[in-house]
Amino acid sequence: MQVWRVNVNNQTLKQESVPETWEKLGGRGLLARIMLDEVEPTCEPLGPRNKLIFSPGLLVGHMLSSTDRISIGGKSPLTGGIKESNAGGRTGLHMASMGIKCLIIENMPDKPGLWVLHLSLANESAKWENATDLAGMGVYETAKKLVEKYGDKVAIALIGPGGEMKLAAAGIQNLDKDKIPSRIAARGGLGAVMASKGLKAIIFDNNGGQRPPITDPEAFKLAQKEYTNALMNHPQTAVYRDFGTIAMAQMCQAFGGLPTRNFSSGVFEQVESISGEALRDLILDRGGDSNPSHACMAGCAIRCSNIFGGEDGKMIVSPLEFETVGLMGSNLGIGSLDVIARLNWEVNDQGLDAIEIGAALGVACEAGVMQFGDGERAMQLLAEIRQNTPLGRILGMGATISGKVLGVERVPATKGQAMSAYEPRAIKGIGVTFATSPQGADHTCGQTIRAKINHLDPSVQKTASLSAQLNMAGYDTIGACIFSGSGYATVPTVIPDLIHARYGWDVPASYLQDLGRETIKMEREWNRRAGFTKKDDRLPEWMTREPLPPHNTIFDVSEEDLDNIFNDL
Amino acid sequence: MQVWRVNVNNQTLKQESVPETWEKLGGRGLLARIMLDEVEPTCEPLGPRNKLIFSPGLLVGHMLSSTDRISIGGKSPLTGGIKESNAGGRTGLHMASMGIKCLIIENMPDKPGLWVLHLSLANESAKWENATDLAGMGVYETAKKLVEKYGDKVAIALIGPGGEMKLAAAGIQNLDKDKIPSRIAARGGLGAVMASKGLKAIIFDNNGGQRPPITDPEAFKLAQKEYTNALMNHPQTAVYRDFGTIAMAQMCQAFGGLPTRNFSSGVFEQVESISGEALRDLILDRGGDSNPSHACMAGCAIRCSNIFGGEDGKMIVSPLEFETVGLMGSNLGIGSLDVIARLNWEVNDQGLDAIEIGAALGVACEAGVMQFGDGERAMQLLAEIRQNTPLGRILGMGATISGKVLGVERVPATKGQAMSAYEPRAIKGIGVTFATSPQGADHTCGQTIRAKINHLDPSVQKTASLSAQLNMAGYDTIGACIFSGSGYATVPTVIPDLIHARYGWDVPASYLQDLGRETIKMEREWNRRAGFTKKDDRLPEWMTREPLPPHNTIFDVSEEDLDNIFNDL
Repeated sequence: MQVWRVNVNNQTLKQESVPETWEKLGGRGLLARIMLDEVEPTCEPLGPRNKLIFSPGLLVGHMLSSTDRISIGGKSPLTGGIKESNAGGRTGLHMASMGIKCLIIENMPDKPGLWVLHLSLANESAKWENATDLAGMGVYETAKKLVEKYGDKVAIALIGPGGEMKLAAAGIQNLDKDKIPSRIAARGGLGAVMASKGLKAIIFDNNGGQRPPITDPEAFKLAQKEYTNALMNHPQTAVYRDFGTIAMAQMCQAFGGLPTRNFSSGVFEQVESISGEALRDLILDRGGDSNPSHACMAGCAIRCSNIFGGEDGKMIVSPLEFETVGLMGSNLGIGSLDVIARLNWEVNDQGLDAIEIGAALGVACEAGVMQFGDGERAMQLLAEIRQNTPLGRILGMGATISGKVLGVERVPATKGQAMSAYEPRAIKGIGVTFATSPQGADHTCGQTIRAKINHLDPSVQKTASLSAQLNMAGYDTIGACIFSGSGYATVPTVIPDLIHARYGWDVPASYLQDLGRETIKMEREWNRRAGFTKKDDRLPEWMTREPLPPHNTIFDVSEEDLDNIFNDL
Repeated sequence: MQVWRVNVNNQTLKQESVPETWEKLGGRGLLARIMLDEVEPTCEPLGPRNKLIFSPGLLVGHMLSSTDRISIGGKSPLTGGIKESNAGGRTGLHMASMGIKCLIIENMPDKPGLWVLHLSLANESAKWENATDLAGMGVYETAKKLVEKYGDKVAIALIGPGGEMKLAAAGIQNLDKDKIPSRIAARGGLGAVMASKGLKAIIFDNNGGQRPPITDPEAFKLAQKEYTNALMNHPQTAVYRDFGTIAMAQMCQAFGGLPTRNFSSGVFEQVESISGEALRDLILDRGGDSNPSHACMAGCAIRCSNIFGGEDGKMIVSPLEFETVGLMGSNLGIGSLDVIARLNWEVNDQGLDAIEIGAALGVACEAGVMQFGDGERAMQLLAEIRQNTPLGRILGMGATISGKVLGVERVPATKGQAMSAYEPRAIKGIGVTFATSPQGADHTCGQTIRAKINHLDPSVQKTASLSAQLNMAGYDTIGACIFSGSGYATVPTVIPDLIHARYGWDVPASYLQDLGRETIKMEREWNRRAGFTKKDDRLPEWMTREPLPPHNTIFDVSEEDLDNIFNDL
């Protein structure tokens, strides 16, 4: 494996050997290490000293189910802190087969310009190709053109107009296994960082590549089989396959924690029309392109993704996920999956984070810029973002800036990043994660909704969140999807076995949490150097003041618990 | 003296005795003490836990020249840190004669509404009078109506539409001695805090009041005379009287430090048309209302204020000050005093900080929203603020938010607050002040331009800035104007003498700096508790990277100096 280091100022590529301290890390953990080693924490996120880093997880490259994710990171223009955002699709797999341990994109062009960066394994080269013709183009059309030009074997990471406009809600999309750019490293504004480097797209051409070497192929196969079986036999896997992530809607509602009308209620009276069952029925009914079960990565046994088609059978968007339905549905008082799906497509096409934009629209409703439930107005507001109007830019900068500029205190965000679709006053463990994660509010940093605890009892949330945060930072470091836990957690020996088979490393039973611990420690240290303190590990004040229906609870996990959660790392 | 504590939620007043630890403080120092004692540093600035505090300086109440200033403070919605903003006019004098050591405005109304708070000494009462009819009204008309209603003997602090819109660039205006609301506690968004308390105006009715008691009247008179003589005989006093603060324009230009076109150059080719001489000539030439020398407070011997009239002899604005001319003139490439004066009136009437708005307009030019030099477009943009459009709200939130939303890195601000009209790359001592002051960028927190040092030499700036910061925090605590130093610094025994005569306190020769030291220590402690770190004591990165013409220097005072400046407090 090598480090590919790209300088966008003089348009050069250096291939370097992997430093010893980076060898045993991948994905999120490696990003944190590189950030500590190379990126000044006080740097301007969109300036020359920030870096944009791609790193596949440690187990990526072998089509282990749900374990080929790509981590993308840098300093976040949204939070001002360290950022790792990961995605499915084929980018991770391609990088691994190209022998790229990590891709580090440095510096800044002297002049404005837009480029496609073409990385070729066969030529060991990086070429900059003028992309002026792609300027302002949505990701769907852009991806199509790029696949036409570079062939359908490549992986592509690309940005939409939102990234080009340097909006803090802009992410980086990745082709899925079907060449659709639907796999977005959404959170934290990394699309704007990519734009600041002058890049519209990165082509990963793995021609001549091969699977990364495996030290003990037989042992690997055995462990893989054990894992896949466990995953396939877990009841949760069937739920995700049949209903997708939207199965969470009814679960959140049952807990009184489904964000509704800008987080003013935990129950949505139209939940049945946006539930997993409703989605599945609609999809099966409509046929055509529609499909309730779809894999984003080759070899995934879960297939939580879906294709949502209209009455004419043609695809509206793929996938339709719970967090989008929560933030752009119940959070906006919108109960129609068709409306949500169209909003979702529009946000995707602009290369934006549906969670951040959904939350910003909720804030806009609170400010009177839009009425709750008015899908048409929501679509107009998304058009304003595309048109780069002042209002569009406000929303495109995310929920926190929208709240500041529009004069709204009730903004559901921590460290400047919007909460995903889980109400921290009803599901308090995820509130602890939102408050304390170095990444800002993000359910994938430590989901507690399935923990067997009383979600309203403030005293038991610290432990639940810590455990979830460590696991997730571990999964993010090996390249595993949040849902892979249904397999990995069932047979806890599998990850150490896979690592041993793949690399020959002897790792302890606590390996996954050890990785998570090391990763979070590094991330917190980086944030500390950037100026973060305990005061940033808080939910917004109004959530500690305003009771949330139906339980009429506030967020009351003690500040002591928030301050001490990582004490023993 | 008493503490008047007002609760805007249940509309009550409590008169309390002054706690012992508050007794020997006033103005800025007392604000810092109260903030530490009573305001949770992590609170939401526009929420119920923030407080809005008025406190006259320790020597206020006796018409000592330039020493009747009112300090207003709270948690800043602009910086998120502690905020003290002081102003001339008559508010300080009235409060002192009412025996009010400080006015603390607490809590938040349950329902939206707009009120005039009428404080009466004779009735020892606070009355809330419905001010719905004043909603959205500019400060000039509002003040006129209030004076008609409450008589011309009262002092008034009030906000304009900018405050009502809760813009972070909104200040609090105060009547000057001629009943014009031209004395604005401009910086840090305190107008928005006042609006969050539901208040459009506060009437200070000192009917029945008297000068605060003086322990040794004879000694006071003697010291006062000594001070006034020193002030009158200082050459700088004549310069301020004849040319106003705009005398600084040519001085800054000479140092290559006059902010020009969004801080991209330190020299402005049209400086002669916006200089002190140009202003004086124009004023004398026009006659009518125009007046080159005008006092904002009764008894001021300097009279740096002025009245700027048009060709028809009618007042356009009063006063026209250097920082406005710098930020809305050279910084916008505008070389016409008439245009600047009209922009100034508009900003004042909305109750906004001309520095913050001028800087935001500079950022807007950089973003292409306006062309440098286009005064008509600038006026349109100010109209957008008044109309509460999205673009108007962006600008009204100040330079930092404008830069974020409009995608501009070159924002001249620290701790979220715009720099006043001194280029830190050419006058590096004030750069140290901008970087390290707990208040954010503010020339009145530590002006170094008159220090006898090489302003380009990075090694000597820490000392110059520290001395200036301590002096200013001291002056702000006794209620003295920045220009009073021409008297006080000439006869350093005067302040201890005045304090001894007024209160009977024996204070050391180092009293002024001691006060400053105590004040800054408290402010830094409060900010620390709010989450500020050394990383906040920095100029923006681009100023350390982009050389400034004509000297082609960057800001290169070492981070070590910035980190250690307050080590010995």
